[in-house]
Amino acid sequence: MRTLPTRTTVGIVGGGPAGLLLARLLHRAGVDCVVLESRDRAYVEQRQRAGILEQGTVDALRACGAADRLDREGLVHDGVELRWDRRGHRIDFPSLTGGRKVWVYAQTEVVKDLIALQLADGAPLLFEAQVTAVTGADTGRPVVHYRHEGVERTLECDYVVGCDGFHGVVRQAIPDGELRTFERVYPYSWFGILADVPPSCDELIYAHSPRGFALHSMRSPTVSRLYLQVPNGTDPAAWTDEQIWDELEARFAIDGDWKLERGPITQKAVLPMRSFVTEPMRWGRVLLAGDAAHIVPPTGAKGLNLAASDVIVLARAFTALARTGSTAELDAYSDTCLRRVWRAEHFSWFMTTTLHTAPGQSEFDTRLQLSQLDRIASSPHAAAELAENYAGLPVF
Amino acid sequence: MRTLPTRTTVGIVGGGPAGLLLARLLHRAGVDCVVLESRDRAYVEQRQRAGILEQGTVDALRACGAADRLDREGLVHDGVELRWDRRGHRIDFPSLTGGRKVWVYAQTEVVKDLIALQLADGAPLLFEAQVTAVTGADTGRPVVHYRHEGVERTLECDYVVGCDGFHGVVRQAIPDGELRTFERVYPYSWFGILADVPPSCDELIYAHSPRGFALHSMRSPTVSRLYLQVPNGTDPAAWTDEQIWDELEARFAIDGDWKLERGPITQKAVLPMRSFVTEPMRWGRVLLAGDAAHIVPPTGAKGLNLAASDVIVLARAFTALARTGSTAELDAYSDTCLRRVWRAEHFSWFMTTTLHTAPGQSEFDTRLQLSQLDRIASSPHAAAELAENYAGLPVF
Repeated sequence: MRTLPTRTTVGIVGGGPAGLLLARLLHRAGVDCVVLESRDRAYVEQRQRAGILEQGTVDALRACGAADRLDREGLVHDGVELRWDRRGHRIDFPSLTGGRKVWVYAQTEVVKDLIALQLADGAPLLFEAQVTAVTGADTGRPVVHYRHEGVERTLECDYVVGCDGFHGVVRQAIPDGELRTFERVYPYSWFGILADVPPSCDELIYAHSPRGFALHSMRSPTVSRLYLQVPNGTDPAAWTDEQIWDELEARFAIDGDWKLERGPITQKAVLPMRSFVTEPMRWGRVLLAGDAAHIVPPTGAKGLNLAASDVIVLARAFTALARTGSTAELDAYSDTCLRRVWRAEHFSWFMTTTLHTAPGQSEFDTRLQLSQLDRIASSPHAAAELAENYAGLPVF
Repeated sequence: MRTLPTRTTVGIVGGGPAGLLLARLLHRAGVDCVVLESRDRAYVEQRQRAGILEQGTVDALRACGAADRLDREGLVHDGVELRWDRRGHRIDFPSLTGGRKVWVYAQTEVVKDLIALQLADGAPLLFEAQVTAVTGADTGRPVVHYRHEGVERTLECDYVVGCDGFHGVVRQAIPDGELRTFERVYPYSWFGILADVPPSCDELIYAHSPRGFALHSMRSPTVSRLYLQVPNGTDPAAWTDEQIWDELEARFAIDGDWKLERGPITQKAVLPMRSFVTEPMRWGRVLLAGDAAHIVPPTGAKGLNLAASDVIVLARAFTALARTGSTAELDAYSDTCLRRVWRAEHFSWFMTTTLHTAPGQSEFDTRLQLSQLDRIASSPHAAAELAENYAGLPVF
């Protein structure tokens, strides 16, 4: 049994993409850190999540040497298609944003690549380390308390970063009343499927339909990822595969040639749609990043990228602290990130409310959605506003 | 007593800006028309309404010779100011829209100028002509029935145009089931005042504030027009002048030098905020224009301009019919206008919901508004999208 570290500069709670990317960026900068993940490796590597990477996220993965497979296997996308009123309109990212684009590469693959690198380096990453509490957030030496192989242990840190998601423990280390939270629950969910069938399109399709929203995405050249707007509380088991494909086909229908390819469905899950923001993202020596600090609905693919930009800002701040002794960047962390967070919350809300049909939505409101979509198709400024937000704003 | 016409090509019901502008455009094109207005001249000339004219509206007034005083007395505005978070940001129209701008010139003055011209030409314009019904919309000869000086009269027309506003009679000539209506009532009203004091600003100020929306506008270099968001059902008499000025001052407050000038309040009124659209805007030989077909909330100043663009399209269609015998443009009238109507409905909704605080609005939604406003201040595309819509899209 190896010796477990009891002291580090940056204690990272959570071994998802945020925690792992932060660890790699800090490792590269020579800043000591330890990652504690409550689940086992297999679980973390199979958790289905996002699949669209912005330029800034890809740049960060490349910078820490974690993009070799992404650069070989990732699908570069130069645009998305919007559908409404039985027609389609393509948004071209490079021409509207000065060359930006996105990569289709599943979060599970990002996580696998980061874990492999971390372990190959012998850098501290502990699975099945169940963090129970963080104490001393307002002292110079916060302590992470965790259980590993039945033993209660502690990790003393200069700083603790909570990358442990919405339900994480780290946020609870901050006293009641010190955090302000903002929330919005959307009145519909996404029914997501994975299917072993080549995608029916080269780029993602976001479809507004009188039957509700649908999204055609993909994970690879042989695996399709599709979503249907469904009522909250929908049971995935209540739909047969044929019903799912029929409904998808109806929602993507356009006048003209286009065919939705069907194949074996390998996963079904219903995902709630929620927005959540915590302010500030730092208290004392505890910092929050990614889903621990904010949630966006998946429309617009901002969640993973927002987590990445948080830890990019954070890695730079810790690096500056290590090199110069200055906490200025760390002190600005929360404000720096929150501007971007609120931009992403707004864009995700915009995409969500423009494309979904709310229960009981008036015909007037539907016409406003169609007018917005018509405008995006006819105005270069409206199209560029969507493209810039979707392809991702610069991290700094 | 002069002889009243009993037969015309275009019977125009309603002598507000839409009906009068249409009459002038038709007169110029040599198309025979008669305007019937239910109120007397003094009432029509004093009815307080809008005050912002888009380029396209000004072009039409100039084209029919009704812009001499507008060109002398109207205030050309190259932008508006947005305020939020105790700071201001100017939107510059010409640089963002390729040279477009707006004119501040009260609707009452437009109406006075058009009436004077119409009467000087001896063109048919009848005040206190109370239209009671329009019959035969689906025949080749619709008839307007009206009462004038106690006598029931009729006016036989080739076409009847309803410029008689939201509560007008003409829309009722169309059978139930032939029109589809779309509606949204906003959960707040505007408390508008006229004050005999020079405006405290050179351009309009649209202010988002935790206390609610406020707008600083003007009618002339010596008359200010200001609005406060208030709850629906507010009684204007419940506010003292001092309370009104105090509240305005609080909502316009910014960090830095700025002073709201106070003066005698000469008018107070509470205006509801509503959106309404009728589809189609034509049935048989009856056509609807302006408020008879659609209402927008006043945020964004689209109501009068939308009425003007309707009648510009209509005048061109009647002119084409007179010259070539083709009804093609007339047949396309509804579709042509509705695209623009829905764009204006969407923009008015955008301005309204971005700037007002709804009752019970969550803090999350307030942050979305602030993020949208921050984006407008930092993104040329977002600013241009606002400027293009505000300054007015081309009529054709």
